[in-house]
Amino acid sequence: MDTTADITAMRRAIALAARGLGATSPNPVVGCVVLDAAGHSAGEGFHRRAGGPHAEIHALREAGERARGGTAYVTLEPCNHTGRTGPCAQALLDAGIRRVVYAVGDPNPQATGGADTLRAEGVQVEQGLLADEAEAGNTAWLTSVRLGRPYVLWKYAATLDGRVAAADATSRWITSAESRADVHRLRAEADAVVVGSGTARADDPQLGVRGIDGAVQPLRVVVDTGATAVKPGARVLDGSAPTLVAVAEDADAAHLPEDAVLRLPRAADGPGLDVPALLAALHARGVRSVLLEGGPVLAGSFVAAGTVDTVVGYLAPVLLGAGPAALADAGITTLSQALRLAVTETVRIGPDLRVTAVPVPARKGN
Amino acid sequence: MDTTADITAMRRAIALAARGLGATSPNPVVGCVVLDAAGHSAGEGFHRRAGGPHAEIHALREAGERARGGTAYVTLEPCNHTGRTGPCAQALLDAGIRRVVYAVGDPNPQATGGADTLRAEGVQVEQGLLADEAEAGNTAWLTSVRLGRPYVLWKYAATLDGRVAAADATSRWITSAESRADVHRLRAEADAVVVGSGTARADDPQLGVRGIDGAVQPLRVVVDTGATAVKPGARVLDGSAPTLVAVAEDADAAHLPEDAVLRLPRAADGPGLDVPALLAALHARGVRSVLLEGGPVLAGSFVAAGTVDTVVGYLAPVLLGAGPAALADAGITTLSQALRLAVTETVRIGPDLRVTAVPVPARKGN
Repeated sequence: MDTTADITAMRRAIALAARGLGATSPNPVVGCVVLDAAGHSAGEGFHRRAGGPHAEIHALREAGERARGGTAYVTLEPCNHTGRTGPCAQALLDAGIRRVVYAVGDPNPQATGGADTLRAEGVQVEQGLLADEAEAGNTAWLTSVRLGRPYVLWKYAATLDGRVAAADATSRWITSAESRADVHRLRAEADAVVVGSGTARADDPQLGVRGIDGAVQPLRVVVDTGATAVKPGARVLDGSAPTLVAVAEDADAAHLPEDAVLRLPRAADGPGLDVPALLAALHARGVRSVLLEGGPVLAGSFVAAGTVDTVVGYLAPVLLGAGPAALADAGITTLSQALRLAVTETVRIGPDLRVTAVPVPARKGN
Repeated sequence: MDTTADITAMRRAIALAARGLGATSPNPVVGCVVLDAAGHSAGEGFHRRAGGPHAEIHALREAGERARGGTAYVTLEPCNHTGRTGPCAQALLDAGIRRVVYAVGDPNPQATGGADTLRAEGVQVEQGLLADEAEAGNTAWLTSVRLGRPYVLWKYAATLDGRVAAADATSRWITSAESRADVHRLRAEADAVVVGSGTARADDPQLGVRGIDGAVQPLRVVVDTGATAVKPGARVLDGSAPTLVAVAEDADAAHLPEDAVLRLPRAADGPGLDVPALLAALHARGVRSVLLEGGPVLAGSFVAAGTVDTVVGYLAPVLLGAGPAALADAGITTLSQALRLAVTETVRIGPDLRVTAVPVPARKGN
């Protein structure tokens, strides 16, 4: 039986968790609120970065002696293992917490078991409060655990008629300043930002997060199969954040910094690199969420590989009637093969429209 | 000073007016509500079809003697001229109406002057109540009066990546049954539905309104410049509604019914017919609103001619990565020439998204 106080505390914990997005990988984001025995807020915290204290530890430290006899609200099941930090289940016991409410069970086999440990010591443990909201806040990490590869969010910016550039390749700026600022938020929440050789060649992008205080710069990844797009002096090599240039195993990459080169097999069919191999390599480096920023051909190879988990389209109320489309070469030749999505959100961003959608299981056209 | 009763009555008159959409051309849609001297509803009506009684006459007939000393609310200034029906200003005077509230002045020089006539006879006349709402309800007709050509609403249905068909030309059905039903509403509200030769050739569309009780079937227009797309036996020639096949002056159209052939000059630059000439010919036939249903090339010629007044896009949450785009050949080669719009509405229609936008004055890219 969850009271209003329970819901308020858990919602606060979910909001706290979100402040860690983009900074905690390979860990999840977690928030925690501790109420004292009288039900007053005593402490709160969130997991800020991998290697740092977990959310529960921050909240217990802030609560101090007031935690004794109190309730802890945690967005994810408290861990039971000793990694770079001690197990949170033990810390909650040591602090004298009498009741633990968590939203989502820990799917990570290394970390699960915290609830059992707490119960065995007589703590009242409840699971599932605001589980949907907490899961939504941890989508990237939960997806990566489930699939064993990074979560991929494909972002594109296009005109209402689906163009990402005009016929003469001019593309700055199709969408508004507000939309571009929103993209920096997406970058800040991602562990890695990925673009293709066409984008690197056309725009020489820097791919950093700008305008967001305290943001952790994501890993910058350029898929440059032939090692011809990223030149010495490219902005992506400016040293402001780590960078990987993914090239084919047989490509001549002597002009690139050695520690920036990631060699991968070519795709079995079609141009470019093997997308699952790229994602596996990023996963091995601790990347749990990828912001795929394009261009159309690279996005097409991700769609063809079935490795797009969320689509975010910024649609500018602009008509061009010519120029490249947002998505190309996805291996779809007839309508029944189309990738069907479900719209989960539409929001006005300045003059533009932001549409978020997720793939739905294949069905026949209606 | 408008009371709540005034606003309620005018809003009802605007709703009544909308019931005439698609059936009144070349006249506007008009609604009227008559309250008796005590402020009780005595009669209401709307203009149902050209040649039939105006809204005021319907409402006055229903009110009978109760109109004496009462107030009439009309969405458009009462007419002052004797056309196929008598002047409404005189009818209001004869009925003993003491106060007339109208939303929008009549821009038609033939019909204007009703307010002056009423004032000269001592009737209290007020203009402007809910003018924006009333104008929105009459956009097509007001636009046609202002520009001297039919109002054009371009409707398209596309995937999120802007495709109107897959690579193999399959296109049924990209959008949902709900969206397709919504398009029939648009057809019912339009005086004419226009498609190009590509659509006629690929789909052999019937272009009628289905599923809407009492709908007036719009004029069906196929732009078939070379007279090669519409064959004898085409569904658009089924006789269920009037049809025009617009062909070039030099085209061989001997296979088409003579009364269906509309001969027009070719476009000075680019393929197809001269769009302003097409619109002028339709205007001369009493068409005040056109639903442009595509395809991409015809839409491009309308955009290039600057004759699209509203864009309605049905976006299906589907990705294709190949296939024709919604708009082609609009004469735009660089981003600064793009047609900039403002989004006026976004609505979910079943699984799809309907985006409505109108052109905004040209500005520099930001």
